[in-house]
Amino acid sequence: MKKSALQIARASYQPKLPVSLTGPVVAVEGAPTQSVADRDEIKTLFPNTYGLPELTFERNPNPEVGKPVNVGVILSGGQAPGGHNVICGLFDGIKKQNRDSRLYGFLMGPGGLVDHDYVELTADIIDEYRNTGGFDIIGSGRTKLEKKEQFDKGLEILKELDITALVIIGGDDSNTNAAVLAEYYKSIGAGVQVIGCPKTIDGDLKNEVIETSFGFDTATKVYSELIGNIQRDCFSAKKYWHFIKLMGRSASHIALECALQTQPNICIISEEVEAENMTLDDVINYIADIVAERASRGFNFGTVLIPEGLIEFIPAMKSLIAELNDLLAHTPDFAAMSAEEQRRFVVESLSEANSRVYSSLPAGVARQLTLDRDPHGNVQVSLIETEKLLSEMVATRLEEKRAEGSYSGKFSALHHFFGYEGRCASPSNFDADYCYALGYNAACLIAAGVTGYMSSLRNLTRPSVQWLAGGIPITMMFNMERRHGEMKPVIQKALVRLDGTPFRRFAAKRDDWAINTRYVFPGPIQYFGPAEVCDQPTLTLQYEHLGK
Amino acid sequence: MKKSALQIARASYQPKLPVSLTGPVVAVEGAPTQSVADRDEIKTLFPNTYGLPELTFERNPNPEVGKPVNVGVILSGGQAPGGHNVICGLFDGIKKQNRDSRLYGFLMGPGGLVDHDYVELTADIIDEYRNTGGFDIIGSGRTKLEKKEQFDKGLEILKELDITALVIIGGDDSNTNAAVLAEYYKSIGAGVQVIGCPKTIDGDLKNEVIETSFGFDTATKVYSELIGNIQRDCFSAKKYWHFIKLMGRSASHIALECALQTQPNICIISEEVEAENMTLDDVINYIADIVAERASRGFNFGTVLIPEGLIEFIPAMKSLIAELNDLLAHTPDFAAMSAEEQRRFVVESLSEANSRVYSSLPAGVARQLTLDRDPHGNVQVSLIETEKLLSEMVATRLEEKRAEGSYSGKFSALHHFFGYEGRCASPSNFDADYCYALGYNAACLIAAGVTGYMSSLRNLTRPSVQWLAGGIPITMMFNMERRHGEMKPVIQKALVRLDGTPFRRFAAKRDDWAINTRYVFPGPIQYFGPAEVCDQPTLTLQYEHLGK
Repeated sequence: MKKSALQIARASYQPKLPVSLTGPVVAVEGAPTQSVADRDEIKTLFPNTYGLPELTFERNPNPEVGKPVNVGVILSGGQAPGGHNVICGLFDGIKKQNRDSRLYGFLMGPGGLVDHDYVELTADIIDEYRNTGGFDIIGSGRTKLEKKEQFDKGLEILKELDITALVIIGGDDSNTNAAVLAEYYKSIGAGVQVIGCPKTIDGDLKNEVIETSFGFDTATKVYSELIGNIQRDCFSAKKYWHFIKLMGRSASHIALECALQTQPNICIISEEVEAENMTLDDVINYIADIVAERASRGFNFGTVLIPEGLIEFIPAMKSLIAELNDLLAHTPDFAAMSAEEQRRFVVESLSEANSRVYSSLPAGVARQLTLDRDPHGNVQVSLIETEKLLSEMVATRLEEKRAEGSYSGKFSALHHFFGYEGRCASPSNFDADYCYALGYNAACLIAAGVTGYMSSLRNLTRPSVQWLAGGIPITMMFNMERRHGEMKPVIQKALVRLDGTPFRRFAAKRDDWAINTRYVFPGPIQYFGPAEVCDQPTLTLQYEHLGK
Repeated sequence: MKKSALQIARASYQPKLPVSLTGPVVAVEGAPTQSVADRDEIKTLFPNTYGLPELTFERNPNPEVGKPVNVGVILSGGQAPGGHNVICGLFDGIKKQNRDSRLYGFLMGPGGLVDHDYVELTADIIDEYRNTGGFDIIGSGRTKLEKKEQFDKGLEILKELDITALVIIGGDDSNTNAAVLAEYYKSIGAGVQVIGCPKTIDGDLKNEVIETSFGFDTATKVYSELIGNIQRDCFSAKKYWHFIKLMGRSASHIALECALQTQPNICIISEEVEAENMTLDDVINYIADIVAERASRGFNFGTVLIPEGLIEFIPAMKSLIAELNDLLAHTPDFAAMSAEEQRRFVVESLSEANSRVYSSLPAGVARQLTLDRDPHGNVQVSLIETEKLLSEMVATRLEEKRAEGSYSGKFSALHHFFGYEGRCASPSNFDADYCYALGYNAACLIAAGVTGYMSSLRNLTRPSVQWLAGGIPITMMFNMERRHGEMKPVIQKALVRLDGTPFRRFAAKRDDWAINTRYVFPGPIQYFGPAEVCDQPTLTLQYEHLGK
C-alpha cells in the first residue's frame, strides 16, 4: 500500500522501553495472589493457575543464552491503536532472546487458531507495521475461545508449528478466555503457555494491578481533538447545540476522559445515572435546565457528551428493553404488521410503566427499538441514536418551558457519533511505547516459563523508561458473574468509579463548565513536538495516580 | 480560557512571510484587467473599480514612513481554519507601517458593521489568537451586506472611528459584496477602501488569479485524517461499508481532495454526476456494482465518499425538490395531515416523473423532504442524510442482485458526516502561513491606497518565502448570474473541473482503488515534524500547478 508521509516518518520511531527491559531480565516473584472476589470458587475452577505470584522483571546480572521459541499471537475483538506495536515488541523480544525464535500470527482473530489460518510474521512484514494504527497485520475477530473442542482444535496447529506460547491481545472477555485456555493447557500438560495483553479503547479493562488498557490514550485523544474542534466552531458560530455520542460500550471512561480534556458544557456519565436511579426524564431535565440557563444569559449554544452505553444504564429503559425483547420474541407476526399497527400493539401489550416510557419516546426512536434486532432477537442498543433521542426530547421539554415562560431561547441541535474514527488511529507516543513494551514484556513472560499471566507495565504516568515491567496472574482479576444465565469466572469489568479522582474532578467542575464556557481545544495528536504536547498520558491515568 | 498544551506551543509559531513582504514594499502595476465574462455590463455596474490593474508587491528600496491608519475587519460566513491569523497578519502589517495604526473588529459578522458592534483589537487580544482555529476572536455571521442603507449605516461608524479601510474576510458571496461596497464607497467619495480576503473550506473560491481559499488545506487534512482512520478500521475488521458524507456546499472539491489523499474505494463527484446527466439510480448502480464486484473477490467492506451537495446535482432530484417546494408552499394544511396522508397527498399531487422518483426513495428520506423546510419554505437539502439515502438504496439494489444471482455477499453499512470537525481546526502550517500573509498583504494593499481588491498570494506550491504577493481587482472575477430571479454581478463560483488535473488524476485511478484496496492513512496534521509531513499543500493545489 502507498504510505503517507506521516507513516514513513513514524516508521523510524523507536519506542522507548523501560530500563529493566533493555537488557537480559530476571523474574522476581512477589507474594501469592488472590482473586478480587469469590476466591474459593475460582481457586477450584483454576487449580493449576490460581494463586500464582505477581512477577517483576529486573536486570539480570548473570544472563544465560535463551532458547529459540515458537510463539503464536492473536488479535481479539475490536481494534485499538497500538495493536501492531504489541506484535512488533513481541517479535523483537523473542528475537532478542534467540535469533531463531519464530512468530506466527493467527488470522482474523481467535477463529484463526481454531481454523488453522495463520501466517509467519517475519522481519520484513513486522517492519511494515511499526508504529502504525489498525489490526490489519493479521486482522481481528470476535470468535470466543470458550469450548474444549476449540482448545483441542487449536492445540493441533500449535503442535504442528511447534508453538509453545500463545499471546492473546484482547479485552476483558478475551483475557478471561485466555486464563481459561491457560488452565486447560496446563491441566492436560499441553506444553503451551498463554499470555494476555490488555487491549481496549473503552478503558474498562483496568484494576489495582493493570493501570490502563492500550488504545484508550490514542482513541480519547482523537475524540478530544474532534470535540475541541467542534467546540471552537460552536463558540465561533454561537448558534448550535452539539450532541456528541462517544463509543465505549457500557463504561463511560471515554466520555469522562474527553470531558476532562475538552471541558464541554455537559457530559452524562452512565454510572452516575444508574447510581442516582435517574429516569430518562431526569436526564432530559438536567440537560434542558442547563440549555435554558445558558439561554437566559444569551448563550444559545453548547456541547453535550453522551456515552454510547447510556440507555442501558437508565433503569426504566433497561426494563422497557427487557420486556420488548421478550414480547417481540413471542410475536412472530410482528414483522407483518404495518408501522401503525406495530406501535399500537406494543403500546397495548407492554406493562403500564413500560408502555408509558415507550409512548414518551420520539416516534423514530420508539420504532428503532422494535426494528433493529440482533441474531438473538434482542434490541441492538448500540444502534439507537441516543444523541438524537436526547436532543429531540430536550427540544420538546424546552417548548414546555417556553409555554411556562421559563425559556425564551433558540435551540438548534447538531449530532455526531465518534467511534470508528479513533480505533485505528496511528498510536500516540504513549500507546506506541506502551504497546511495544507490553509485547516485549510478554516475550519476557514467555522466557520466564509462566502461563495464565497478563503482561503488565506500571508507573505509567512516569516517562516510559521508568515503567515497572512484570506479569499479573489473570485469575487475580477474577470474580464470579452471571453470563447468559450461568455463573462464570470472569475479569471484573471496570466501570467509572464515582468515588474515583477522575470523576470527582469532573463533578467538581461541571457546574462551572455548564454555565460559563470553558472549552479546551486539545488539537490533533502530535508525534514530533515538545514533550508536554506529545508525551502526556490521559488525565484519567494522571488523576488515578494522584488519588492513590 | 484554559489553553491546551498544543495551543501554548503553537502560540509561538512565527508564520513565514514571502520575502517581498519582509520589508517595506512598493506596488507594481500590471496591465488593466477584464472580468471573466459579461464585460460591458460589469464595467457599467462598476464604473469606479472596473478594469484596475493587478498589483504585485516588491521590496521598496526607497521606503517612506507610513501614516497611521485605522482599519476595520469583518469575518463573514462559515468558519475556516486560519481566520485568526488573517487578522493577526493584518494587525502586524498596519503596525509595521506605523505603530499608531489601529485595528477594529466588527462583531458577529457583517451585521456588526451595520449595528455598530465592534471591539478594538489590541496587541494583548491579538496575541491570544495567533495560530489558533476558530473565528471566536470577533465572531462571524451570515448577514449579507447588499443594500445601500446597510452601506450608509456602516459608514457612520467607520467615520466615527476614523476608519479608512475595511477588510472583509469571506467566501465568494462576501467578496462579491465587498466589491459592491468598494464601488459604492468610491462613488460617493466616502474615503473608505475595501479589501477582500479569500476564505472558505469548500475550496470553491479560486480562479486563474486566486490559487486557493484559506481553510481548505486544514479542513481537508482533518477529514482525510478521519477517513484514513476509518479506512484502517475498515481494512482491519473487513466487515463494513462506510458511507462518509463530506461538507462543501455545492462543489465537490473537499470530497475530491480527500479522495486523492486517502484513495477510498468510491468517491462520487457531483459535477460529474450532473455532466453525465446521471439519475439517482445510476449513482446507486455504480456503487452497488462495485460492492458486488468486491464481494465476489471476498471483500465485503469498503469506503464511499459523498459530497454534501450531491442531491442538488442529480437532475431528477433537482426537479423533484423544485416541484415539492412549489407544491407544499401552496398546501397550507399539509402540516395538519397524518404522515400517511402526507405521503399519499405528495405521491398523488406530483407530476408523474417526480412522483416516481419520490416513491422510489426510502420512506425516511422521502418524509424528510417534506418535513424540514427553511424560513423561505424550501427543502433544506443539507439536512438530507445523503449517506443513509445512498446506503439504503444500495442495500435494496444488492438484494435485487442477490435474487438475480449476481451477488452473494454481505452488506453492512455505517454512516458518517464530517464538516464541523474541520472548520475550526488549528490551522496547518500552510494555512497559518497563508492566512498570516493574506492579512499582512491586505495591510500593504491598504497602504497602496487601492480599493475593490482581493489580497492575493501566488506560487503557493513553493515554500512560503517564495510566494508572490499582490492584489487582484475583485471585478476581474465577476460574471453575471441569475440570483433570486435577477441577473447579478457575482464572483464566478469554482466547481470541480472535469478537465482539470485533480479530477483527471482521480478518474485515472478510481477503478483500481474500487476493486483493489489502496487506502492511504494520512494521520493527523503535524506542526513540528519533518517538512514533508508538516508543510505539504493540498494535492488539488499541487496537481493544478502541474496542469498549468
